[in-house]
Amino acid sequence: MNPDSLQQLDRRLLKFARERDWEQFHSPKNLSMAMIAECAELVEHFQWLSEEQSMALSSEKKEAVALELADILIYLVRSAERLDIDLVDAANRKIAINEQRYPAEQVKGDARRASEY
Amino acid sequence: MNPDSLQQLDRRLLKFARERDWEQFHSPKNLSMAMIAECAELVEHFQWLSEEQSMALSSEKKEAVALELADILIYLVRSAERLDIDLVDAANRKIAINEQRYPAEQVKGDARRASEY
Amino acid sequence: MNPDSLQQLDRRLLKFARERDWEQFHSPKNLSMAMIAECAELVEHFQWLSEEQSMALSSEKKEAVALELADILIYLVRSAERLDIDLVDAANRKIAINEQRYPAEQVKGDARRASEY
Amino acid sequence: MNPDSLQQLDRRLLKFARERDWEQFHSPKNLSMAMIAECAELVEHFQWLSEEQSMALSSEKKEAVALELADILIYLVRSAERLDIDLVDAANRKIAINEQRYPAEQVKGDARRASEY
Repeated sequence: MNPDSLQQLDRRLLKFARERDWEQFHSPKNLSMAMIAECAELVEHFQWLSEEQSMALSSEKKEAVALELADILIYLVRSAERLDIDLVDAANRKIAINEQRYPAEQVKGDARRASEY
Repeated sequence: MNPDSLQQLDRRLLKFARERDWEQFHSPKNLSMAMIAECAELVEHFQWLSEEQSMALSSEKKEAVALELADILIYLVRSAERLDIDLVDAANRKIAINEQRYPAEQVKGDARRASEY
Repeated sequence: MNPDSLQQLDRRLLKFARERDWEQFHSPKNLSMAMIAECAELVEHFQWLSEEQSMALSSEKKEAVALELADILIYLVRSAERLDIDLVDAANRKIAINEQRYPAEQVKGDARRASEY
Repeated sequence: MNPDSLQQLDRRLLKFARERDWEQFHSPKNLSMAMIAECAELVEHFQWLSEEQSMALSSEKKEAVALELADILIYLVRSAERLDIDLVDAANRKIAINEQRYPAEQVKGDARRASEY
């Protein structure tokens, strides 16, 4: 992780956890549970909306959604810290894999899952 | 978002989606589903492990976990792009809220959910 | 639970777990993780489909979805067994709560979340 | 589904949805989102507990967990109804598959995922 915004976030979150003596709860197992629970709160905002409605949120709803995305990022950064994983490096490696797996000319306009090709 | 690693990731992912004509599938509703599916793949790695085992992964398992974290970050960045949300700013605002909600001296060593206080 | 199909399922699953010495892994915590991972596999089938497409699955896809629903039911029954909870009784009590919470004449055609009323 | 408790639940839930004109929201896609959101509320109860603690819930907590299991069963039954899938039949077929896939003598005491064998 470069010394940038994610790294600052990481430090702030580590300080937050340590001041509360919460590192003892932050096993990767537990953090994955907390992360999926936050992710489900995001899903809950969209479950009865049409796709179009999900693109056109009121400003109040958009702010609520922003804070759900924030919660997911928070647990993602905590997980990476506990596991000593460089998130941005991993994402760039994964995108390179996806670029190989889904050649643009072959999958254009078609989002079927990889396993179905 | 500062002109840093997350912003570079955002641009690379937008280019990836556009080259495949996949933006049409990337409604916030659909992206939330894809994100929770990736999050569940992370959970699946840990479901039968003890917390201790989840702290001490083999290098092979750790790499698989890194790529799951990457997938979550990828859909998080895509969601923020579609909704025009600044992820890092939202995370910092959310941490400020949490600092108010959970005063260090009051919650020290106790991870009960906010609603239970 | 009445002596019916769910109870038969419960007995078959308990036997399955015991023959494999897997009860040791089946804490409610772990089972909740396994259940959400199965639930996410269901979500994955639908994530890039429109709502209409999700109503009109091919017979091959429908069979795959049936087995995902089965996996969720399996972990649900296992969880109830470990916690000594009567699933059908709990469901009937929850429906009674929902009938109070969402009076038909008040919420007709409107699926907003309870908290938003 | 035999004419038993699950079938009674199915009928009660269908009536509940129709009286509120909510069938329009109950596409399999949307129901999968609602189901995973309920599943995450279950996960949330256990995320900071040890496995042992998750086995020994207070009666208050156990009742809250029972109602979460109920919510999952409710959406499971609704999904099966919309897709015309027999849940108990699917579960029995899936258990038969698992009995083949995990021979008792081969996997005894070992819960690694199928893909890892």
